[in-house]
Amino acid sequence: MSHTKLCSRPIKGLILDIAGVLKDGDIAIPGSVEAVAKLQAAGFPFRLVTNETLKTKKVITKTLNMLGFRTTEREMFSPIPAIVEILKKEKLRPHLLLHPNVLPEFKDLDMENPNCVVVGDAEECFTYETLNESFRKLMEMEDPKLFSLGIGKYYMDDDGLALDVGSFCKGLEYATGVKARIVGKPSSDYFLAAVDDLGLKPEEVVMVGDDIEFDVNGAQQCGMRGVLVRTGKFRKTDESHPRVMPDAIVDNLLHAIELVLNSVQNFKHKI
Amino acid sequence: MSHTKLCSRPIKGLILDIAGVLKDGDIAIPGSVEAVAKLQAAGFPFRLVTNETLKTKKVITKTLNMLGFRTTEREMFSPIPAIVEILKKEKLRPHLLLHPNVLPEFKDLDMENPNCVVVGDAEECFTYETLNESFRKLMEMEDPKLFSLGIGKYYMDDDGLALDVGSFCKGLEYATGVKARIVGKPSSDYFLAAVDDLGLKPEEVVMVGDDIEFDVNGAQQCGMRGVLVRTGKFRKTDESHPRVMPDAIVDNLLHAIELVLNSVQNFKHKI
Repeated sequence: MSHTKLCSRPIKGLILDIAGVLKDGDIAIPGSVEAVAKLQAAGFPFRLVTNETLKTKKVITKTLNMLGFRTTEREMFSPIPAIVEILKKEKLRPHLLLHPNVLPEFKDLDMENPNCVVVGDAEECFTYETLNESFRKLMEMEDPKLFSLGIGKYYMDDDGLALDVGSFCKGLEYATGVKARIVGKPSSDYFLAAVDDLGLKPEEVVMVGDDIEFDVNGAQQCGMRGVLVRTGKFRKTDESHPRVMPDAIVDNLLHAIELVLNSVQNFKHKI
Repeated sequence: MSHTKLCSRPIKGLILDIAGVLKDGDIAIPGSVEAVAKLQAAGFPFRLVTNETLKTKKVITKTLNMLGFRTTEREMFSPIPAIVEILKKEKLRPHLLLHPNVLPEFKDLDMENPNCVVVGDAEECFTYETLNESFRKLMEMEDPKLFSLGIGKYYMDDDGLALDVGSFCKGLEYATGVKARIVGKPSSDYFLAAVDDLGLKPEEVVMVGDDIEFDVNGAQQCGMRGVLVRTGKFRKTDESHPRVMPDAIVDNLLHAIELVLNSVQNFKHKI
């Protein structure tokens, strides 16, 4: 595959997936520590974009640092700060169905007499009582709004597969008839907020991910370019996907970063 | 509305909804105690068909008896005995996500190494742990089967609206990609099992209910006739429903029973 498509226009910023691109579980993917270091050395703008809502940006950053990545919270983009921003902007008062780990992030918001419900992965905090409470709040609202932090089906936990937020969101949607607004990949709103956080336009930004649907297609749907890496959940069949054509397919993150930095160099020479 | 449609063919048995037809909450609907007594006096075959899965037939019968109905367990048809019958017939080993009240009803079944999951209204027993356990069991199965005892969205509980089993079933369906088989109204399998329990054919049986979709349409979809009563959740707009045309619309159960018994008398005279 040639990279003409990827490099036909200037690239001014990057959005990188974490799981399957930077790391697999608790192991850094070979070359990815070096790749991130190269971006930082070149002063090239990027954001690490995740759907993780069980931990704050601070804790996710700490985990990455332990694996050798010298990333900071400022370079991280996660659904929690994104929803806080949306709630502030739209003057919404949330009822929260979230893991206690992340509740402090909402401390500045008015939560009296809620006019929306925010559901994220809450693990053992999903109980009949908490789900029913969120359901009742939605049914009481004049104009009910439901936000879901991602819409994942399940993920691999230490002791096996674990239900993700999508399952609980779909249940609330069915009972209330309210369609949730997704804050997380692959929602365009979410990608565009990350692009906005970089101070760039979608056409100037490239997303690098291992999920051809959520990452590559999600990014392309909102005007970015999407690069697929052959790491993480990548499968050979992704290369001939019936609908999604990545702007490039590369072996790993390091390969992607080298391509991008070379392309930037070439554009500089043209000017 | 004439009742020609209802009475054009012999009626040999009846299926009666409980909530909204026999009683509203803890109050017998006027005329319904008399109506059931008339059926029993005439020796006319009928079944009381409910989606209730928090209580055994025994407990539901006791509640009806306290309201003045002289009904027995034998006249009751509920999803619990229906699913037990299906599991036995299809030699399935269930993993149960049900309320502890009804677990003893499954005591004769083999539940080692389960090859299906049965979910019913479990109220406070719906926890992340129990839902995740059912999810994992389904993901481990070679040919996963999911049964849902009804697919209701919510119901009115003593202290307000309460999430029904449908919400949890939809969540499991989303996460696993397995489509549930519904044992309860409005599923045809369920209606046909009740008809079978009467020892009759669908075209010989009339269903009387207050829900134009679940009761009337559900019954008509499997070859029965469906009568709508103007009690319970009936609304004026049901009389001009865009898709469903009841075989009769009557004021209440007593009215329905009088029509049916008269019709039976007329057919006898013809012979």
